[in-house]
Amino acid sequence: MSEDRILLSHGDGGQRMAELIERVFLTHLGPSEPPGDDAARLSAPAELAFTTDAFVVDPIFFPGGDIGKLAICGTVNDLATAGARPLALSASFILEEGLPLADLERIVVSMAAAAAEAEVRVITGDTKVVPRGSADRLFISTSGIGAIPVGVAVSGASARPGDVVLLSGALGDHGLAVLSCREGLEFASPIVSDCAPLAGMVQDLLAAAPGVRALRDPTRGGLASTLNEFARQSGVTIEVEERAVPVHPEVAAACDLLGLDPLYAANEGKMVVILPPEQAQAAFAALRAHRYGREAAAIGRVQEGAPRVLLRTALGSHRLLDRHVGEQMPRIC
Amino acid sequence: MSEDRILLSHGDGGQRMAELIERVFLTHLGPSEPPGDDAARLSAPAELAFTTDAFVVDPIFFPGGDIGKLAICGTVNDLATAGARPLALSASFILEEGLPLADLERIVVSMAAAAAEAEVRVITGDTKVVPRGSADRLFISTSGIGAIPVGVAVSGASARPGDVVLLSGALGDHGLAVLSCREGLEFASPIVSDCAPLAGMVQDLLAAAPGVRALRDPTRGGLASTLNEFARQSGVTIEVEERAVPVHPEVAAACDLLGLDPLYAANEGKMVVILPPEQAQAAFAALRAHRYGREAAAIGRVQEGAPRVLLRTALGSHRLLDRHVGEQMPRIC
Repeated sequence: MSEDRILLSHGDGGQRMAELIERVFLTHLGPSEPPGDDAARLSAPAELAFTTDAFVVDPIFFPGGDIGKLAICGTVNDLATAGARPLALSASFILEEGLPLADLERIVVSMAAAAAEAEVRVITGDTKVVPRGSADRLFISTSGIGAIPVGVAVSGASARPGDVVLLSGALGDHGLAVLSCREGLEFASPIVSDCAPLAGMVQDLLAAAPGVRALRDPTRGGLASTLNEFARQSGVTIEVEERAVPVHPEVAAACDLLGLDPLYAANEGKMVVILPPEQAQAAFAALRAHRYGREAAAIGRVQEGAPRVLLRTALGSHRLLDRHVGEQMPRIC
Repeated sequence: MSEDRILLSHGDGGQRMAELIERVFLTHLGPSEPPGDDAARLSAPAELAFTTDAFVVDPIFFPGGDIGKLAICGTVNDLATAGARPLALSASFILEEGLPLADLERIVVSMAAAAAEAEVRVITGDTKVVPRGSADRLFISTSGIGAIPVGVAVSGASARPGDVVLLSGALGDHGLAVLSCREGLEFASPIVSDCAPLAGMVQDLLAAAPGVRALRDPTRGGLASTLNEFARQSGVTIEVEERAVPVHPEVAAACDLLGLDPLYAANEGKMVVILPPEQAQAAFAALRAHRYGREAAAIGRVQEGAPRVLLRTALGSHRLLDRHVGEQMPRIC
């Protein structure tokens, strides 16, 4: 297939997508502010965070959530990655002719519940309907504005050698829940998406550990992609301890079956935290005290060195954990 | 076709869409702020406008523009309807596998040009790719944040009996340009979309006529729908003088051929203005002095009475100009 057409891998969070963003969007629209972060900042009229995401998950209902809950949580979590408190959300819907109204209503109810939990509201929106066959049921784009507290300057470019890497819980629940549901796979313990709004947990974290340098939710492309982004933005090596990374047994089993790596699997209710070692204990305790951080773990360290991510395996050897190339999981979020 | 499924008419700006918004979105997510306006306001940390729109126009390139220019102009114009100066835009893309990269690039270039003209930047974005057949080429959702100057309180709910209705130019250029292109119709004078960012014109207008009560861009559903929204929001009757409404001859001819009414046809570079009569002359002059307002016209008056729109025909009779029901123009924006 030729490189002058859009491929599935242009949307998967990996290498090709990074190239597409560089070649097309950054070239013509200029960099996001700050460059490479998930949420943009506005200096006027105050410190605001502003972010957007499109949601095209298939199936639209899955164990632990649906496209609506996902759309709210994804945007709330992107605001949280800037250390921001969500102020307002927008939602625009693209609906396929023939979509059952009951499905739409169920999804909107789910959005309202997730927004209420995150203490924010969808205050503006838009709806388009396209003829049958021009879209697959529904797509949702959500945008969010958040207030960044004075003194908070969290960015993927701020990691420093010596910093500690925390992960707020187990990997891959969302990606494997969606894939298992799509493929009709059944496991003894069903896999449930971790989809959750993390703004409250991040507020608790920042109160306990104001020195947090970087936050990011490892969605498409998973932990490996997020750490690679941090490594490039900050110009550092990040070493991850394989044994320290929490993965639920049913997720590990499903990954085995499907030939996937949980380090690259999508999450929708997890946060990666980078911070100085002296605040790691307080941060860890704050995460563990929150319902969405009960399985938090310290998983690695930031080191001097070329921008890359190294996995220290259970056997003590090192493996390069690169950004993946190719289609890992289309329509996972 | 049953009412428990989404119909094309749920997305066309008419009666069914109003019912859908009321029944599903407003019921579960609560009203926009202020209710019924195109752009939402945030009181914290300052007076901001925040708006979003999805763009699904077919074809993606048409005389006078493309889906990218449309996405920028639509969002800039929604901010302008709040009297706001655009501060920042976001864009999220849903791309179909197989979309030519050159098409995407051309569209993004066009977005950059429209944003530059409106003196605003797209500062954050997102991209999803769906498998071939799950979407039709590409959809774009844009959101915008704008700063509302102190003292400006423009709203569709502010029209008062005695107010004058101005229209910034001729009707139907966008809708008929897209439809003609889609249907392969050719006319002696080609129809060109009016797609344009109107924030600058609105700033000039507000400087000349600070008493402006209501602004709205008559997009899907056209002038008739916009005036019906104003009439309902403000609880007034609006009377429009048919002879005073500018329509280009080629658009009138195309409407005749296709059985469409230019009063319901979509525009993407026009503004409806409601203001007290004593400022009408200054407002009219400001519009006429701007490149996008050269064909501005005074087209009607606000009156006491039930919320409705009356058309005074060339023969002097009155005709109720209702919100339309049914599919006028799917995928026009």
